[in-house]
Amino acid sequence: MKPGFKNEFVYPLRIHIEDTDFAGIVYHSNYLKFMERARSEWLDQLGYGIIQQQEHGVYFPIYAVQMVFLSPARVHEQVEVVSAIKEVRSASVIFDQYLRRPLSDDKILCKAEIKLACVDSEMRPRKWPKASIFETIRRTLT
Amino acid sequence: MKPGFKNEFVYPLRIHIEDTDFAGIVYHSNYLKFMERARSEWLDQLGYGIIQQQEHGVYFPIYAVQMVFLSPARVHEQVEVVSAIKEVRSASVIFDQYLRRPLSDDKILCKAEIKLACVDSEMRPRKWPKASIFETIRRTLT
Amino acid sequence: MKPGFKNEFVYPLRIHIEDTDFAGIVYHSNYLKFMERARSEWLDQLGYGIIQQQEHGVYFPIYAVQMVFLSPARVHEQVEVVSAIKEVRSASVIFDQYLRRPLSDDKILCKAEIKLACVDSEMRPRKWPKASIFETIRRTLT
Amino acid sequence: MKPGFKNEFVYPLRIHIEDTDFAGIVYHSNYLKFMERARSEWLDQLGYGIIQQQEHGVYFPIYAVQMVFLSPARVHEQVEVVSAIKEVRSASVIFDQYLRRPLSDDKILCKAEIKLACVDSEMRPRKWPKASIFETIRRTLT
Repeated sequence: MKPGFKNEFVYPLRIHIEDTDFAGIVYHSNYLKFMERARSEWLDQLGYGIIQQQEHGVYFPIYAVQMVFLSPARVHEQVEVVSAIKEVRSASVIFDQYLRRPLSDDKILCKAEIKLACVDSEMRPRKWPKASIFETIRRTLT
Repeated sequence: MKPGFKNEFVYPLRIHIEDTDFAGIVYHSNYLKFMERARSEWLDQLGYGIIQQQEHGVYFPIYAVQMVFLSPARVHEQVEVVSAIKEVRSASVIFDQYLRRPLSDDKILCKAEIKLACVDSEMRPRKWPKASIFETIRRTLT
Repeated sequence: MKPGFKNEFVYPLRIHIEDTDFAGIVYHSNYLKFMERARSEWLDQLGYGIIQQQEHGVYFPIYAVQMVFLSPARVHEQVEVVSAIKEVRSASVIFDQYLRRPLSDDKILCKAEIKLACVDSEMRPRKWPKASIFETIRRTLT
Repeated sequence: MKPGFKNEFVYPLRIHIEDTDFAGIVYHSNYLKFMERARSEWLDQLGYGIIQQQEHGVYFPIYAVQMVFLSPARVHEQVEVVSAIKEVRSASVIFDQYLRRPLSDDKILCKAEIKLACVDSEMRPRKWPKASIFETIRRTLT
């Protein structure tokens, strides 16, 4: 990776009551919500958020997920999602994301590899737009 | 109410893990989901479901809710939502709904009065369509 | 209200994709989640958060809700929940809460009156604990 | 697999408004909820449901998920989750699950491999209980 480029985005969040289940821990599918919030926020800060996606008629649906649950998060905990872009292909991008207690990489609660496609409004695959941040990141990753 | 018309719809459902929170009971906002499922299913059976709404460009957003929580539902319980139409106005309809243990009216878990507007695709109020089931029900209620 | 006491808590939040439905707006029951997040955070800052509740064996379940939906929130919008305590009784408390676009009171999206009971771990009503913040607030409201 | 044993469980469900997002399709994390509903119902019918788990102090948390999203489900669609047990180990079990339009295996919407651990109430790994249905299934799969 080229110097000066930081391929990492840290997104803090609170575990709310709504996120937990009767076992007293976060219900498993909610970790996917947390990771999506982090990606959305990062893309937005990179100038490619939901509003821009709608303007350009380009969408990034998830087509594959791998996830490992290591340690449960509990109600009212403050946690953070750490996201990085692992790979950029012509019409897809792979994120590596994990959830940790703040600033403590040895307390990883959940890890995921999330694959997004790039499609148009008819859900047909399309190449990343020229101006896409992913183009920039692709060049940076090389 | 005219004889032969039954203004009541019973919708059974299971409480799933996803519906509960760390207190071991159903998270309060989920009761609104249960009631919406029941209304959707009823409207569909009456020929005015989501698909028909889209075809006619007519939508029924909620504009007011009153709800009382009497007794909590727990994971894996089988319950049912009982729905009735309380009142039909020119561009709104009021539902009375409650959640109970099966066939046991003395075990009401949650009661709600839900007010729906009738709007077009631009969210402007509009009268119920002529062919609306609510017209039928209005005549029946009178 | 006594001078120096500010009975208002402003809680900012982002509307995420998970909060929306196929109509392109926030699904109605999710507004209750937003309001609960705001109450939880406020109670926590007042020293009576979920962790303290568990330590004292005291819980605040919702027993009644009145809600009016005025204008829909949309994906990626930044909004805020404004909360105030309306009334404190011996074993219950009433919150007034609303959702608005930031700092703009004429853009209220949703209003709610939320009634919480005070119960022990067996769900039996109990008086607010002596040290309760609500005692302080009750005295302040008088 | 031994004759007479059917290692497949078909669980029907309706896509509700609450399951969709602003893109008009099911929000991705909700497919995990659908699969969990199906597993819970199956385990219950096999005599190892949530209630029995609590009685025996044995729990089955998810520790890993692989999922592929092939085609989106839409509001009000009737779909079904097809579940099979792929492998049984000493303290874990692997499910293969997919979501399809009814009775149409060529219309698979989403596939998942879900790995469950077997733990006690302190979240420590433990062997499947002797009487466990998984023992039966392990013998059947061999």
